[in-house]
Amino acid sequence: MAALDAVLGKIDANRDAALGRLFDLLKIRSVSTDPAFRDECARAASWLADELKGLGFDASVRPTEGHPMVVGHLKSKRAGAPRVLFYGHYDVQPADPLDLWVTDPFAPRLDGVEGKQRIVARGASDDKGQLMTFVEACRAFVETGGVPCDIIVLFEGEEECGSSSLPAFLAANRDELKADLCLVCDTNMWDANTPMITAMLRGLALEEVVVRAASRDLHSGIFGGAAINPVRVLARIISDIQDDSGRVTIPGFYEGVSELPPEIAEQWKKLPFDGAKFLASVGLSVPAGETGRSVLEMIWARPTCDVNGVTGGYQGAGSKTVLPARASAKFSFRLVGQQDPEKILEAFRAFVRARLPGDCEVEFIRHGASPALQLPSSSPALTAARAALAAEWGQDCVVGGSGGSIPIVGEFKHDLGMDTMMIGFALEDDRIHSPNEKYELSSFRKGARSWARVLEALAWQENQGTLSSAERRNVTP
Amino acid sequence: MAALDAVLGKIDANRDAALGRLFDLLKIRSVSTDPAFRDECARAASWLADELKGLGFDASVRPTEGHPMVVGHLKSKRAGAPRVLFYGHYDVQPADPLDLWVTDPFAPRLDGVEGKQRIVARGASDDKGQLMTFVEACRAFVETGGVPCDIIVLFEGEEECGSSSLPAFLAANRDELKADLCLVCDTNMWDANTPMITAMLRGLALEEVVVRAASRDLHSGIFGGAAINPVRVLARIISDIQDDSGRVTIPGFYEGVSELPPEIAEQWKKLPFDGAKFLASVGLSVPAGETGRSVLEMIWARPTCDVNGVTGGYQGAGSKTVLPARASAKFSFRLVGQQDPEKILEAFRAFVRARLPGDCEVEFIRHGASPALQLPSSSPALTAARAALAAEWGQDCVVGGSGGSIPIVGEFKHDLGMDTMMIGFALEDDRIHSPNEKYELSSFRKGARSWARVLEALAWQENQGTLSSAERRNVTP
Repeated sequence: MAALDAVLGKIDANRDAALGRLFDLLKIRSVSTDPAFRDECARAASWLADELKGLGFDASVRPTEGHPMVVGHLKSKRAGAPRVLFYGHYDVQPADPLDLWVTDPFAPRLDGVEGKQRIVARGASDDKGQLMTFVEACRAFVETGGVPCDIIVLFEGEEECGSSSLPAFLAANRDELKADLCLVCDTNMWDANTPMITAMLRGLALEEVVVRAASRDLHSGIFGGAAINPVRVLARIISDIQDDSGRVTIPGFYEGVSELPPEIAEQWKKLPFDGAKFLASVGLSVPAGETGRSVLEMIWARPTCDVNGVTGGYQGAGSKTVLPARASAKFSFRLVGQQDPEKILEAFRAFVRARLPGDCEVEFIRHGASPALQLPSSSPALTAARAALAAEWGQDCVVGGSGGSIPIVGEFKHDLGMDTMMIGFALEDDRIHSPNEKYELSSFRKGARSWARVLEALAWQENQGTLSSAERRNVTP
Repeated sequence: MAALDAVLGKIDANRDAALGRLFDLLKIRSVSTDPAFRDECARAASWLADELKGLGFDASVRPTEGHPMVVGHLKSKRAGAPRVLFYGHYDVQPADPLDLWVTDPFAPRLDGVEGKQRIVARGASDDKGQLMTFVEACRAFVETGGVPCDIIVLFEGEEECGSSSLPAFLAANRDELKADLCLVCDTNMWDANTPMITAMLRGLALEEVVVRAASRDLHSGIFGGAAINPVRVLARIISDIQDDSGRVTIPGFYEGVSELPPEIAEQWKKLPFDGAKFLASVGLSVPAGETGRSVLEMIWARPTCDVNGVTGGYQGAGSKTVLPARASAKFSFRLVGQQDPEKILEAFRAFVRARLPGDCEVEFIRHGASPALQLPSSSPALTAARAALAAEWGQDCVVGGSGGSIPIVGEFKHDLGMDTMMIGFALEDDRIHSPNEKYELSSFRKGARSWARVLEALAWQENQGTLSSAERRNVTP
């Protein structure tokens, strides 16, 4: 590990210069959603391409219909090195309301006392600070003999406004971008001292259900008692979907849902996560999911069926004695493991149809579906990265999940056939998207050191033959 | 029955003059909801008061905060005659859209061929034609020796715009208006040849339920699985309220609900009412009420629980991954027999509270409650009137119900302690409230004869001692 020590030493030696470079990037007002900042986005892309070129990357700014991509390639000198694709985004959220910022959001500064300093600026945490941790790790490798993996860097400029150019770009550059593993740096640590790899992202299937009965709204005095009420029909469907233990009753729903690996389950149990406090933050106290599951399991590792909206009949103030002719509900399913969204939706539709009394018709409106994404817990890359992060932070690394979906990870999986390991050093309280966004200086510094350790560990794992890059690269997505 | 024959003969002899008088009333544009017709309303009231005075009534126009009332009293010369209060309204609906009328809505005319003629004008059926049938019956009695009952006439001028002056007027004139029985002429026949007494009106209780859980709307990715969803809670409540046989499951709900008297049940079974056709008119085919009940029973004689509106979460197009913090539903209960609205609402609230999981709060918003109104099937007045109507029309008289409520009947019951018998000669196809409103000439002519028979029958019944007017009049409402 003499080589790694040299890299880490180099990162430490570069720290002030590294901060200067990050500040330069933070000064660029690359707000992607506002056309007024179009040139600033282009400037941020150029700045990054130049940085990468300076490190020896074969880097370029690649135009799209929206803001440009930055792609850079740097080969390792080591034979059989694994290939990784690192993704980040250089665009930022709008800074307004400006009057809530203590200082100019694009005039980065250090705040706080020595040892507890933070970088304050729009994009400090989301995502310029995070992506620069990776760039600085690469720099240190380059300055001490070369990177341990073949590295592809992909920086996007539209993450904060819908990533509309990304799918076409991935499709058009599939071969160039294909790697053994994706690394995405847009996530949090467990807490300020505990690193986390986000290895599970729940999937999402969305379906609207419209139940129709009579040909028009009816007077409840004249027809009440004889005419079917679609609100009642829909209510019964919604009610039937969960049993008293909180389990979803749609046949086959749990197909592909696995229990947590015992080691991860054990780790989650020990995490200082206070489910009661989590719920109390929004005025709740009783976990509403499956009986016997912890809150963390409910939100990270278990599938759900929820109603996001329901509508039927009279919506105004007071009363109206009407029997509505239609009622509708918007359902969402959070999916985990190997649940197949299409199968789930098909089973859901059958479930609804089976509960449709005579005279009722149902319409299904599809609003999208994507499966869960999970880095297998047996993945050698995960094992390697966990150990690397634990070494840097002196704490066991949490293997966590995310209840929500992160579209880019889905794109990598479905369009390029690549698994993604999400490692980030942001904190819950970084105020991303809000005034006075900050990034801990320790996140920036130890983040760069963390990437150095992770890259070295992935290369070492590869040398042990547990990552078979050549084979994996040939898998058609 | 020689006396009655003379009265009926007088009605026949007066028929052309009677039609002329009705036409005079129909020419008055007494649209109550439009302030532009205020003077016309006053003119209609004066016209009616003058008519009554001409018959010997002690009649007057009585001002209110809105349009005036007309009250008239005429004593019978017979000792111990029963006292009846006859209610009608002289105001009419606006006539627009005028271009859909074949002729001026306030230029009454006869339409159709001899033997099948109808009176066409705004108010012909609702309610000027109907109330004049009663006035013409009184005229014939007066011209042949006197009315058989003590008669109080009450004509209102605000029925089509909310009857806002009526409750205060009833309260202020309680002693003057108290009678043994109310007669209301604002209803239909079963069909053009079959008379009907409407003897059951369902009551109505309205209650809105708001279920609240989290302190704000939640992201379904972050909280989905752990946070309770008020839409689900509400759906379960709605779903639980009926069992699979269509019965309402609220404890005590059927307290005070009786089976139809066998004779009425038998009559309803024989009625040429096509439940399938009734439902088909609004695109339905399966009666949704209690298993084993006929459609007519469901809408006339059975209580219901319905949801008139439901709302929760995202209401716009597309999808939104939100867990709503609140959901609400507007419930209505149609009540029958002796069901107590307050008890029903209390039981309903308990039913809801019992299904409220932890973290949920419920708010109940009251939108009013009134009990069902029912003329007891054993009522001697009902028996007498049925026989009288059957004699006039040569058909058994249907004892029917109405699924909806008629506020005036409730006022008479609750404010004055009086039962109401609703007899009218309108038909389903009279186009009331619509262009080209009509009233069958046979309804007008035989309607007057019907009232003569009914009044005579009520007086005869009284003489048999089965109506105890003196006692009944002393009952405090």
